[in-house]
Amino acid sequence: MAQKPSIPKGTRDFTPEQVAKRNYIFNTIQSQFELYGFQPIETPSFENSDTLMGKYGEEGDRLIFKILNSGDYLNKVDDTLYASKDSNATTPKISEKALRYDLTVPFARYVVQHQNEIEFPFKRYQMQPVWRADRPQKGRFREFYQCDADVVGSTSLWQEVEFVQLYDAVFSALKLEGVTIKINNRKILSGIAEVIGASDKLIDFTVALDKLDKIGEEKVKEEMLGKGISMEGIEKLQPLFTLSGSFSSQVEQLKSILSTSEEGKKGIEELEFIDKAITQLGLQTATLQLDVTLARGLNYYTGAIFEVSAPETVQMGSIGGGGRYDDLTGIFGMKDVSGVGISFGLDRIYLVLEELNLFPETVSKNVDLLFINFGETEALFSLKAIKQLRLNHINAELYPDTAKMKKQMNHANKRNIPFVVLVGDEEMETDSYTLKNMISGEQDKVSLEVLISKFK
Amino acid sequence: MAQKPSIPKGTRDFTPEQVAKRNYIFNTIQSQFELYGFQPIETPSFENSDTLMGKYGEEGDRLIFKILNSGDYLNKVDDTLYASKDSNATTPKISEKALRYDLTVPFARYVVQHQNEIEFPFKRYQMQPVWRADRPQKGRFREFYQCDADVVGSTSLWQEVEFVQLYDAVFSALKLEGVTIKINNRKILSGIAEVIGASDKLIDFTVALDKLDKIGEEKVKEEMLGKGISMEGIEKLQPLFTLSGSFSSQVEQLKSILSTSEEGKKGIEELEFIDKAITQLGLQTATLQLDVTLARGLNYYTGAIFEVSAPETVQMGSIGGGGRYDDLTGIFGMKDVSGVGISFGLDRIYLVLEELNLFPETVSKNVDLLFINFGETEALFSLKAIKQLRLNHINAELYPDTAKMKKQMNHANKRNIPFVVLVGDEEMETDSYTLKNMISGEQDKVSLEVLISKFK
Repeated sequence: MAQKPSIPKGTRDFTPEQVAKRNYIFNTIQSQFELYGFQPIETPSFENSDTLMGKYGEEGDRLIFKILNSGDYLNKVDDTLYASKDSNATTPKISEKALRYDLTVPFARYVVQHQNEIEFPFKRYQMQPVWRADRPQKGRFREFYQCDADVVGSTSLWQEVEFVQLYDAVFSALKLEGVTIKINNRKILSGIAEVIGASDKLIDFTVALDKLDKIGEEKVKEEMLGKGISMEGIEKLQPLFTLSGSFSSQVEQLKSILSTSEEGKKGIEELEFIDKAITQLGLQTATLQLDVTLARGLNYYTGAIFEVSAPETVQMGSIGGGGRYDDLTGIFGMKDVSGVGISFGLDRIYLVLEELNLFPETVSKNVDLLFINFGETEALFSLKAIKQLRLNHINAELYPDTAKMKKQMNHANKRNIPFVVLVGDEEMETDSYTLKNMISGEQDKVSLEVLISKFK
Repeated sequence: MAQKPSIPKGTRDFTPEQVAKRNYIFNTIQSQFELYGFQPIETPSFENSDTLMGKYGEEGDRLIFKILNSGDYLNKVDDTLYASKDSNATTPKISEKALRYDLTVPFARYVVQHQNEIEFPFKRYQMQPVWRADRPQKGRFREFYQCDADVVGSTSLWQEVEFVQLYDAVFSALKLEGVTIKINNRKILSGIAEVIGASDKLIDFTVALDKLDKIGEEKVKEEMLGKGISMEGIEKLQPLFTLSGSFSSQVEQLKSILSTSEEGKKGIEELEFIDKAITQLGLQTATLQLDVTLARGLNYYTGAIFEVSAPETVQMGSIGGGGRYDDLTGIFGMKDVSGVGISFGLDRIYLVLEELNLFPETVSKNVDLLFINFGETEALFSLKAIKQLRLNHINAELYPDTAKMKKQMNHANKRNIPFVVLVGDEEMETDSYTLKNMISGEQDKVSLEVLISKFK
């Protein structure tokens, strides 16, 4: 019996139109990455399991796709373990490789492995798929692309400035105006936790604060109380909930809250540096905004934290994020290499551009001209012209079969090919081509030179 | 203990230079695909196992990378099977997904699954990685890209003609002159087998004939004898071993061998059609050559068989191949859909271009200008200029740290950045930039306008 074909849940086929639109986004991001001096690298789709395992927490370990060893893999499981039928304990014995879960850990591995060939500071970008065994849902897939740009090997804050500019440059190039680049700093979050006497509860504190937008002030306070943060401490947070005004006036308010924390003051200093530079340099279409609730749930950020929101007219989560991490390569034995990077969420950017109708009309490189096939002699005559058109970078093709005229015209219509060319005895005798506009229906008899110059 | 980082055998990291060179090949192939009217699709990296298993023979099944199910996967193995500790029998119970082994089977699956949205004939291209658990060796990897173009839904021989042109167009665009496009036809092989009374031994016969180049006439005959092909039959083959002259004169010689085989004569007719069209149309830099020993070991070709050899000056196997298959989608229940397609071997093309020094010098999009960082004020002044340069599509960047001049200059040298820009008090006062050529050492003080016009 023939199989009814399908694909695994959480994965997607992409049609020609979708590929063209995705490539438009990729190419736009890539151009800006290169203008900013980032260089591309690529890493293998699967890594040795021990490169990935333990780097994303317990939940992450569970969501990593593992690849089964080849051959008689069960033979290598010892009898005691085998008797236990314990899946978790058996996995490392029957699987040595795993699919990439993100681009950051493979990048760290790359930097350590190639450290002697790399000239630091190293600015790299990487646009490759990653895989997660997550429960699929709207906008969440088991295979999706990440587009990352990172610099390693320098602690300079000019890099944070440059990443704000880069976000602005990419979204401006995509004509997606009005995005908000939210910025925070891990040191500010640490400073606040210190000030309210909750330094040992930094994670609980930031996880709760991160929910302010979604659940509101009261619920956030309840959650903090529940996690054992004192009422006195929470009261000290009050100014945070009502922080308002311009970037610099918010910074002033923060200064009063954080006056007793050295780390907090360092964080403010960093924010101010970035804000002042961006004010001087200007942004094209984006806005830089301070958001002290921003934590991104990621524990490895040590300095700046970024997140980008789509314009308010669109309901969409973040379309990008990133930050500074001071010891990324430490997990692979290379200490004190500071890095900072940002990521673009391709799938969400796609949805936003679709919703706002921002894809250029010419994004699909469609065929300009379909030559109708009237028979062998006509086809050969047509192919000679098609060869010249293609040499002039014009997308053209011959309908492969001598089918009924109507069928061939329908084919052109269904593929949205704007022009067809008719070649019969008369055209061959006079070395000319009847060009028909498929929308207006207009026809015109032209020479090959005119045909080329019209579409070039 | 920190782990010493490495990657799985048979996989590769790609450095910026390698990515740039690979992208140059991809982009060149893609441009020609699009000029010829092919449209891109993409399919998921992993498919349901039953989509792939059984499609590539027993050897293929073994080489497919299987993905371990998530969760307590052993729980779903029944006790009797579990007690047998039989890896082969267990695999389908603990693994439901597998990594793509080629692009052809996923394409067939795509066509069947999307048949109602597709307008036939459907010309698609696909450039994605595939994975095989093969023993890695020189030039053979466990992860590698395939670049395929296929047409399905028409039996027209004009498509074979177009694929010969497409091969020529791609290799000409890559400046790889002198490739040989070898062509054969499955019907000719069947016809010969028929004529020598070995129709039931077609595979054995073609496998042996395929080795003529490598092991010579005598050994090929021995192998055929060993496979049970009669001495009388093998004697009838004699003209094959000495086939020579132009394409058309070889065709004439074949005609005399195949005069009693209807299928063989059909094969000759097809070859002649293609040869005559190509003679009329002309090729830019490639040569079309008849090779009756060409079988490509693949059983699914039913008509034309293609293989491309690099210029003779380079020692390299085939750099491309393809052919016509009359029932690709039958495995998924869609009958009588003829297809024809070709593939480009990216890794080998890369090696050939490297060996012949054919990569353009500008293939890596390097930074044109590095601004030396003398301090905060200078850096900000520089970033204002850099912003304008980038808006004019000039790759420029600021050294992120206020490091010693020598260190910054070394950085420019190591990254082969051709120019640095020096901005000090004098430059800031006069709104100018000192541009230094890193090769000649020449220096010049210029305005931003001049800087832009020089690099635009």
